Amino acid sequence: MIDRLCIVGIGLIGGSVARAARTRSLCREIVAVDQDVRALQRAEELGVIDWGLDETAEAAKGAEAVVIAAPVGRIEGIFEALKPVWSKRAFYTDVGSTKGSVVQAAERVFGRVPDNFVPAHPIAGRELSGVNAAVADLFADKRVILTPLATTDVRVLEQVRKFWQMLGAEVHDMGVAHHDHVLAATSHLPHIIAYALTHMLGRKDEKDEIFQYAAGGFKDFTRIASSDPGVWADICVANRSEILGFLHQFEAELQGFGQVLESGDREKMHEYFSEAKMARQRFLDQFKGKT
Amino acid sequence: MIDRLCIVGIGLIGGSVARAARTRSLCREIVAVDQDVRALQRAEELGVIDWGLDETAEAAKGAEAVVIAAPVGRIEGIFEALKPVWSKRAFYTDVGSTKGSVVQAAERVFGRVPDNFVPAHPIAGRELSGVNAAVADLFADKRVILTPLATTDVRVLEQVRKFWQMLGAEVHDMGVAHHDHVLAATSHLPHIIAYALTHMLGRKDEKDEIFQYAAGGFKDFTRIASSDPGVWADICVANRSEILGFLHQFEAELQGFGQVLESGDREKMHEYFSEAKMARQRFLDQFKGKT
Repeated sequence: MIDRLCIVGIGLIGGSVARAARTRSLCREIVAVDQDVRALQRAEELGVIDWGLDETAEAAKGAEAVVIAAPVGRIEGIFEALKPVWSKRAFYTDVGSTKGSVVQAAERVFGRVPDNFVPAHPIAGRELSGVNAAVADLFADKRVILTPLATTDVRVLEQVRKFWQMLGAEVHDMGVAHHDHVLAATSHLPHIIAYALTHMLGRKDEKDEIFQYAAGGFKDFTRIASSDPGVWADICVANRSEILGFLHQFEAELQGFGQVLESGDREKMHEYFSEAKMARQRFLDQFKGKT
Repeated sequence: MIDRLCIVGIGLIGGSVARAARTRSLCREIVAVDQDVRALQRAEELGVIDWGLDETAEAAKGAEAVVIAAPVGRIEGIFEALKPVWSKRAFYTDVGSTKGSVVQAAERVFGRVPDNFVPAHPIAGRELSGVNAAVADLFADKRVILTPLATTDVRVLEQVRKFWQMLGAEVHDMGVAHHDHVLAATSHLPHIIAYALTHMLGRKDEKDEIFQYAAGGFKDFTRIASSDPGVWADICVANRSEILGFLHQFEAELQGFGQVLESGDREKMHEYFSEAKMARQRFLDQFKGKT
């Protein structure tokens, strides 16, 4: 059992790590730090954490496990705050949606990535944000990607793997660059598309009130456009070049379909939609037998 | 009470009209016609209809109410089949997702749109298709748009309005062209985007197995890419010019965001995402107090 778990950033993900750790009796006590004092108070009221502090070094001192659960844009500052109290006896992990930027931030602050820091990315979330939305089963049966480096301490890697497994997750290892490439496709690009469509139609709705004629399909399709704008601005900055690559690829995809549409070739449209439907079925099939 | 209700096309929508009509005791008997004999048999087995026929004129003869619930590409052929038995004593409506093409089909077949046909479009659906997916509450608290013409018989219009209201829907009237413009934005464009993204990532998944790292957000986002390819090919053909207009507008929207991303201007990205999130909230707010 971990004696003290420290969560840096007590939002949806940090709060859910805390709730899951408590529910599964992973640690004796949970301390959290956040710039937002009200979030800390709320986390204490909800019983998500034992106590909150507004000073990162103070909170992390003496902790055996430190989870950095802040937007990727803040991680470098957190590394700087942690540096004076960085402990050989603890393990460190994070939850950032991009991993290259986190590794680079660690290199800038520490000279090299500390061998007891294991970059992690839980593929789990909700469109809600903040500690109020935190739930104990957020990671249950979800994938967590670890991107260990050649210099990562193998024993720490196994500790961190076990930590995420104990929170309910299925843990996969992946290279840093591969992670950022794959997630740009499956997560970052879809978010940008949803934001862009909602942005465009929002302007039209202001004039023509079109949203009243949008249905459940539109609601599901745009759900991720309700995600936290700050978090997503950070992700875009951190993984800019990978996202740009896929964005351009998607523009070409739309242009290609536009030509089919222009031509009025019903058979080609039917084939295109059928291929897409089959691809989505392949995506769905992997959830079979899971919640 | 309607004595005999005839449903032309017993898929998800036609089956749900039948189920809702039965649950709400709107008619004495329900007869259906479909090219797919197995769908008719299944509808009989499920108790969705009283009996099925494979001959449209035969099925519609003697019905007081006829609902054409076939993909928009088939409606002209159905009008032709109905023409010899078209009854002054009955009312006719349809469920097509595009209305201009339906009105044009009626003009081609009848010379002018019959004054007892009221074009309708229920803004309701599921990504599932077929009579097995039909449910009695598909239209409950959903909007149905009627696009009556100047020549539409006002008494029939009120009959059709009441019919859809009795199925649980909130009925709105709209001009034909305005309908096709608005729905291109809120429904047709989102479907194409979802199909295009799934199509593009499906090709990548075949090589790199990226779908295993896609999460719930992706599942929601791509749900509409599981819609019936034939139905959507028809819609694209029928509403091609409106859809093309919005598709080009969306390409420009993505290019605009791409420039912001390229520039790395975090504040602008944050503002863009915030505006989109607020627009989606405006969309969500109209559901308040509804299911």
